[in-house]
Amino acid sequence: MSGMQHLEQSLRYQFKERDLLRQALTHRSYAGKHNERLEFLGDGVLNFVVAALLFKQFQRIDEGDLSRVRASLVKQDTLAQLAQQLQVASYLRLGEGELKSGGFNRPSIQADAVEAIFGAIYLDGGFAAVYKVIEQLYRPLIEQSDPKTLGKDAKTLLQETVQALRMDLPVYTVVDTQGAAHDQTFVVSCTLDQLGINTRAKGSSRRSAEQAAASLALAAIDKQHKAN
Amino acid sequence: MSGMQHLEQSLRYQFKERDLLRQALTHRSYAGKHNERLEFLGDGVLNFVVAALLFKQFQRIDEGDLSRVRASLVKQDTLAQLAQQLQVASYLRLGEGELKSGGFNRPSIQADAVEAIFGAIYLDGGFAAVYKVIEQLYRPLIEQSDPKTLGKDAKTLLQETVQALRMDLPVYTVVDTQGAAHDQTFVVSCTLDQLGINTRAKGSSRRSAEQAAASLALAAIDKQHKAN
Repeated sequence: MSGMQHLEQSLRYQFKERDLLRQALTHRSYAGKHNERLEFLGDGVLNFVVAALLFKQFQRIDEGDLSRVRASLVKQDTLAQLAQQLQVASYLRLGEGELKSGGFNRPSIQADAVEAIFGAIYLDGGFAAVYKVIEQLYRPLIEQSDPKTLGKDAKTLLQETVQALRMDLPVYTVVDTQGAAHDQTFVVSCTLDQLGINTRAKGSSRRSAEQAAASLALAAIDKQHKAN
Repeated sequence: MSGMQHLEQSLRYQFKERDLLRQALTHRSYAGKHNERLEFLGDGVLNFVVAALLFKQFQRIDEGDLSRVRASLVKQDTLAQLAQQLQVASYLRLGEGELKSGGFNRPSIQADAVEAIFGAIYLDGGFAAVYKVIEQLYRPLIEQSDPKTLGKDAKTLLQETVQALRMDLPVYTVVDTQGAAHDQTFVVSCTLDQLGINTRAKGSSRRSAEQAAASLALAAIDKQHKAN
């Protein structure tokens, strides 16, 4: 179990009952006690601790922005990133089927295990202990985050950006659809006449193509600003 | 401020900084600092503490059932019930418009204030203090609750009930629609042939009429069982 010691070092938390950590790392495909109840508990404590950290960090941000930023910080992508950082994949216990299909590397399995670890720490060491662990892991993410933009989609950001520049709103146009009806690809352009910007992007839905085109337009605005 | 003392007694918590309690009771329609950030914080701590209480109370229930029961315990209706019990309405601070339109009695405003109070207690007294307050308020609700049924809709419960009785599934039929297209009322029947049960109910959507008819069918089954 020397492996678990390394994980404990990364977490900066030492379990009194290591069985709890072991359970947190056990996927339901593995025989025996798995981590889904711990994940339920860990999801709860994570959501709250991140709420408390954001409440303290951003004193003048309203609850709508706090909610959006929190959603972005506790979503699967972010948790899977933390799982990478903690090298959770190498400690996971999976059943045969999951093993063979590469379940170790599946973001959802990794993210769930991270939440379960938080649940296990709460049970093992109490609230203060898990608060400290989550704070250490999230402090860098929170300090880097801009609560006015984090978690906003590209179309919203682009709209806010052009409004701040007092320019006309972007115009999205479907310029092409490719493929059969059930498996279409949409090509959408995003035009900002006054800025001389016209971008194009593909997506499996009109919406996703628009978002991609908006991202490119944001990058183009950014480039113009840096050039000036 | 003797009123606030009574509220503190109901909560069994005494604030060090009563301004926090005052802010928790202040709706955004009122001038000055309102309770929405505290509500964000309180929502987080409530969700987590109820998760932790359920985790402890129901050792053999899987995370799906835990989530459903929690959702039922933290929803607006339940919080508005707690608000009634704490007589929160009489302490609320609302703006003119809300005052005139009876905002005191609006379940959403009351429920939000209860969450904000939890947030305020966390800030004032820390996690252990708010855990204790929430536990006292929720203990009776949790002890009464059946984790196999709480939060399930009537159609789901009815289906599970007839399956347990090894009977045919209920049949729902729209027997009448009344009113104009944009404002229709649906009349739906729910038939359980083998039990000789046929109920009818109205609703503003087909779905809500089916749920109401299922509720009546559940009551009818219950009555048959008590008669035997």
